[in-house]
Amino acid sequence: MVYAMTSYTRFTVAKSSPSLWRVTFDNPPINLIDAVMMKELLALLTEIERDKRVGVVLFDSADPDFFLAHYDIAGDPADLEGVETTPGRHPFTDLHIRLSKSPAVTISAIRGRARGAGSEFVLATDIRFASRERAILGQFEVGVGAAPGGGALNRLPGLVGRARAFEILVGGQDFDGELAERYGYVNRAIPDEQFVEFVDAFAQRVSRFDLLALADIKRFVNAASLPADLPLGAEIDAFWQAADRPAFPALHSQAFEAGYSQRGPVELNLGEFVGTILADPDTYSTR
Amino acid sequence: MVYAMTSYTRFTVAKSSPSLWRVTFDNPPINLIDAVMMKELLALLTEIERDKRVGVVLFDSADPDFFLAHYDIAGDPADLEGVETTPGRHPFTDLHIRLSKSPAVTISAIRGRARGAGSEFVLATDIRFASRERAILGQFEVGVGAAPGGGALNRLPGLVGRARAFEILVGGQDFDGELAERYGYVNRAIPDEQFVEFVDAFAQRVSRFDLLALADIKRFVNAASLPADLPLGAEIDAFWQAADRPAFPALHSQAFEAGYSQRGPVELNLGEFVGTILADPDTYSTR
Amino acid sequence: MVYAMTSYTRFTVAKSSPSLWRVTFDNPPINLIDAVMMKELLALLTEIERDKRVGVVLFDSADPDFFLAHYDIAGDPADLEGVETTPGRHPFTDLHIRLSKSPAVTISAIRGRARGAGSEFVLATDIRFASRERAILGQFEVGVGAAPGGGALNRLPGLVGRARAFEILVGGQDFDGELAERYGYVNRAIPDEQFVEFVDAFAQRVSRFDLLALADIKRFVNAASLPADLPLGAEIDAFWQAADRPAFPALHSQAFEAGYSQRGPVELNLGEFVGTILADPDTYSTR
Repeated sequence: MVYAMTSYTRFTVAKSSPSLWRVTFDNPPINLIDAVMMKELLALLTEIERDKRVGVVLFDSADPDFFLAHYDIAGDPADLEGVETTPGRHPFTDLHIRLSKSPAVTISAIRGRARGAGSEFVLATDIRFASRERAILGQFEVGVGAAPGGGALNRLPGLVGRARAFEILVGGQDFDGELAERYGYVNRAIPDEQFVEFVDAFAQRVSRFDLLALADIKRFVNAASLPADLPLGAEIDAFWQAADRPAFPALHSQAFEAGYSQRGPVELNLGEFVGTILADPDTYSTR
Repeated sequence: MVYAMTSYTRFTVAKSSPSLWRVTFDNPPINLIDAVMMKELLALLTEIERDKRVGVVLFDSADPDFFLAHYDIAGDPADLEGVETTPGRHPFTDLHIRLSKSPAVTISAIRGRARGAGSEFVLATDIRFASRERAILGQFEVGVGAAPGGGALNRLPGLVGRARAFEILVGGQDFDGELAERYGYVNRAIPDEQFVEFVDAFAQRVSRFDLLALADIKRFVNAASLPADLPLGAEIDAFWQAADRPAFPALHSQAFEAGYSQRGPVELNLGEFVGTILADPDTYSTR
Repeated sequence: MVYAMTSYTRFTVAKSSPSLWRVTFDNPPINLIDAVMMKELLALLTEIERDKRVGVVLFDSADPDFFLAHYDIAGDPADLEGVETTPGRHPFTDLHIRLSKSPAVTISAIRGRARGAGSEFVLATDIRFASRERAILGQFEVGVGAAPGGGALNRLPGLVGRARAFEILVGGQDFDGELAERYGYVNRAIPDEQFVEFVDAFAQRVSRFDLLALADIKRFVNAASLPADLPLGAEIDAFWQAADRPAFPALHSQAFEAGYSQRGPVELNLGEFVGTILADPDTYSTR
């Protein structure tokens, strides 16, 4: 088990009441999910699971342009090796499974970009509110040579139906708040000027309700609708297999050269960008 | 088995043709679902199941403000004891399961409020049309100390996706016709001035189609999408366990004092009201 | 097995690149699905399955009023007897199952009418884009005495939820592009003047992505959301049983007399038309 840390470096935790925790991502320059953030999120989950009074955990971002950019693929994988997780599970899969099964209600307040693993993090939370003007969601991974591996393949069909799941996943495009709402990718898109007030009022309201009633709701809705653990594990395995194919490093080196993982136009418009690169520009891939 | 009654006291039944029955809820002051209504609905279902010519059953309300307010929790539970149901099933669960499996197509024409058990009744029907201006749906139970027990936990995820199901269930808020349509909580919200004409035309059209074709459609769509019976039974058991916790009577006594189950501002705005009471105002609950 | 044909008569196939195939239905007068088209589509699928470079197959129509009208019920069933399919499967079921499981991404670009088996064909493809002004979808079969048999009963609940599936199936009405989008019957309705450009840009973009990534996405999303093969087979069996009931030929003879399967007002407004005929105008059917 990961033991609760006394402090976090990739996000802050503010408890406005014993039952309402606000977790604010703050990992400049663009809120990449790196190994340290993953370790800290796993530690936070342990805190949540052990606490007897937290009813609602609200996730937001200190950066209005980036909620969670995506996974830090350039990070050192060795950074993850010390993490203790549920045996047999990749830490990322473990994080998402425990997040969905946590007795607390989890809410993502999405302003800025949530793509790739950032999109998958919000898909693993219970409720997603999006700023109509500022939120951008997407699964761009297909454009850099892999299917997503952190749950999108298993979670999206139940949320948006298989046809819209295919469109999101094979298109790799950016979805703004309005289209994300029409597709069910988020619960609702709220005008940005009302966004903070709306989300805070909702979170506070829920946090005052009876904790056992909330836990019962989570238990039954999870039983009725949560994807099974097993295909979530298969999904991450397939991702790492894809990463061993030539297309993956070829596309990533083009992307990094252009500004991938840095604050700038490529990350601001990543959906559009991945449509401009090819693993082998002179030919098409085969199966 | 419950045998067909010759007359009903909580609703009227009008047969405009052998294949189209209109059931109009009429249980003043606010169309609470009480033990008598439940018995009568079970008897009505037996009628429907035995009839060989009914293709469509349309449910509406004589009260434009209340379709079905919610369950009459102050009623005498002993009133239910005489009811014969499918062995092992709570009458409410039995009613909903039989309603969904009935060979007739069931349509809810929702004007006014359908909350709690009233929302769960319409969720157990096949099709829900809502008046855009007059319909209000909601599952307020979390606000009075329990998760819903009449099917909402199992039915909502398949209709609106798990994220919107969580929002409806943990938020306990009122949903107007327009938002209910956006979420898939109802099929469509129809402008109130066209509502009766629209619903009647649809019901009449369907009622003239071949009854075996309609029954085939119900059979296959049920097999593909109806929640299993077992978790529906577990859901009502969990509700009664929740009702034994201190929060449930504490919240209900505050609610009754304010006007719960009576015609008036609390029932008109029940979603808002439940956000104003706390089981123990000086502290927060624990798990 | 059906072997690849060197040429097709019911549609054209254009390969703008090795990874993007465009299949244009062209079977005047109204793009009925007849036995020859079914054989040719099965042959096309064999081509797709054997090809190692096709990533996207885009289906559109040469007729702006009819994408695929419906099945040619007046055709000679003997025309189908030579077809070799997966053992035990009706050719139509086999076509849809293989279409959904094909490693290529399939996109329907729906302008004009896609009803009955035409609607079921697009439901078996991965992604559906509709012209907002020109697309019309519907399952009118209930109006001619049968539940649909080509997958609609099993596929619609997962795409639009069980309530809207019931409305589409028991109502038998026409759905325009805008309502089809609101219901999730199609991914999106695009203004007709932008339609071709939008769909082409999407298909070209996807066709340049890594084929193994696309195949991984299909594999996982299919595992998470594709209806099982078995109930799809039961659905077509139920259809042929329905066709043996008196209502089916009675309604079809009225329909053919009025202009069914011909270019003209009945086919342009088939959803409305089926509401005007009755199997036995003097009475109602029984179950």
